[in-house]
Amino acid sequence: MTTTQLFKQIQKKKSFLCVGLDVDLTKIPQHLLKEEDPIFAFNKDIIDVTHDLAVAYKPNTAFYEAYGLKGWQALRKTIDYLNEKYPEIFTIADAKRGDIGNTSRMYAKAFLKDLGFDSVTIAPYMGQDSVEPFLEFEDKFAILLALTSNNGAFDFQTQTVKGLELYKQVLKTSKTWKNAQNLMYVVGATKAEYLKGIREIVPDSFLLIPGVGAQGGSLEDVCKYGMNSQVGLLVNSSRGIIYASSGEDFSQKARAKAKEMQEQMAGFL
Amino acid sequence: MTTTQLFKQIQKKKSFLCVGLDVDLTKIPQHLLKEEDPIFAFNKDIIDVTHDLAVAYKPNTAFYEAYGLKGWQALRKTIDYLNEKYPEIFTIADAKRGDIGNTSRMYAKAFLKDLGFDSVTIAPYMGQDSVEPFLEFEDKFAILLALTSNNGAFDFQTQTVKGLELYKQVLKTSKTWKNAQNLMYVVGATKAEYLKGIREIVPDSFLLIPGVGAQGGSLEDVCKYGMNSQVGLLVNSSRGIIYASSGEDFSQKARAKAKEMQEQMAGFL
Repeated sequence: MTTTQLFKQIQKKKSFLCVGLDVDLTKIPQHLLKEEDPIFAFNKDIIDVTHDLAVAYKPNTAFYEAYGLKGWQALRKTIDYLNEKYPEIFTIADAKRGDIGNTSRMYAKAFLKDLGFDSVTIAPYMGQDSVEPFLEFEDKFAILLALTSNNGAFDFQTQTVKGLELYKQVLKTSKTWKNAQNLMYVVGATKAEYLKGIREIVPDSFLLIPGVGAQGGSLEDVCKYGMNSQVGLLVNSSRGIIYASSGEDFSQKARAKAKEMQEQMAGFL
Repeated sequence: MTTTQLFKQIQKKKSFLCVGLDVDLTKIPQHLLKEEDPIFAFNKDIIDVTHDLAVAYKPNTAFYEAYGLKGWQALRKTIDYLNEKYPEIFTIADAKRGDIGNTSRMYAKAFLKDLGFDSVTIAPYMGQDSVEPFLEFEDKFAILLALTSNNGAFDFQTQTVKGLELYKQVLKTSKTWKNAQNLMYVVGATKAEYLKGIREIVPDSFLLIPGVGAQGGSLEDVCKYGMNSQVGLLVNSSRGIIYASSGEDFSQKARAKAKEMQEQMAGFL
């Protein structure tokens, strides 16, 4: 998918919502546990009731790996379902991978080619040759961790390196890499005030923004400091939407929460 | 496994060799492709012929994820085989994971509890709360990326932060985290001369050293600058051992290469 197509979808749906599919079997409605594949059954219902309100879905691979083979099977079914039934949706494998070049190439193949995600999140610590293999796929994206939503972000990311915070060095340096047009960046909503400085370095890139909702970030601040002419934002909500209810009404409640966020977003567009 | 047990194994085998199980189906002997699970068949043969020469095995998860469900099945069989047949061996999931706290907890469960690895490699970019969930398991280890063997290491890891290179800040800061005694560190053999400075910060920790062999690092330099009173080194070789031959003699050739490395190591002990 191109960013122009993504922008068109945002305009059509009046939404830049990404729904995080972080499935925890202890939190989903208990009646789903009778299904053959409860994780996929849950995802399918959530996707079906929110697909007109969201432009992107983001399964975090940790939640699937935690269930071993069954988890991977559910991840595969989820991405296949999204690609077949809702091909206009932007898909993100939130995997935070990164390794030496020939190994990153294996991860890139796994997520962008074999599973068929539009994008995958990447950790920047190992530098250029660990990221570039993810940038070789036309109209696919590597979403590089810049400034994350957690407290640990202050351990290294905000430390000063050659007069600039490390996360800004990551942004600046990554722009020199081959196929840098295929980069997007993760910036936590809990640090929305940093978005102004970030936009000075990457004015045109799409930013994936976790941390609105359960983690406490403000949608208003994110829009104020982070929006560009193509919107340039994908704001993620996981727990706030998918666990809005743990009863049989979970999908209606999830839709209501997604609708609430979409309406707030429409107000900022 | 405790580091005392690991040290005893090193003394007994006169070896601190770790064999990297990075299985690429285009490189393994073609007669194995007829097996029901060629990846596991290959690993099993490699382990059986090298287990008396190596103290650790390290599958890199990228190579398993690249084969989807079959890859995960092979990874599970490999770690089960190691734990059942060779329980004295130290096992490393080379996964380079790391996420916000509640998500890292899912990864820790997947690798250290469910799959039953002794350790897992972790990327430090997201800081304290992304690493600590991996440190909660008694006698299990998180192996934190410090200074990696690739060229991209010079992009951020060697940049100066508050008067110290970033990788040294990572070492220093990580020592203040909860259960820091369960930390080990990755240091690339291609940067062996840096080991002297690293040992000033983490004199007692075990270091996992990739990059000897195919990537060009020197075993002599690694020992000269990195060895401590408990040896404190796990030197990894992947391609140099497992792909010593792609013919029917692959396991004998792999053993010969491992034996060669073990004998060099014995000379440094």
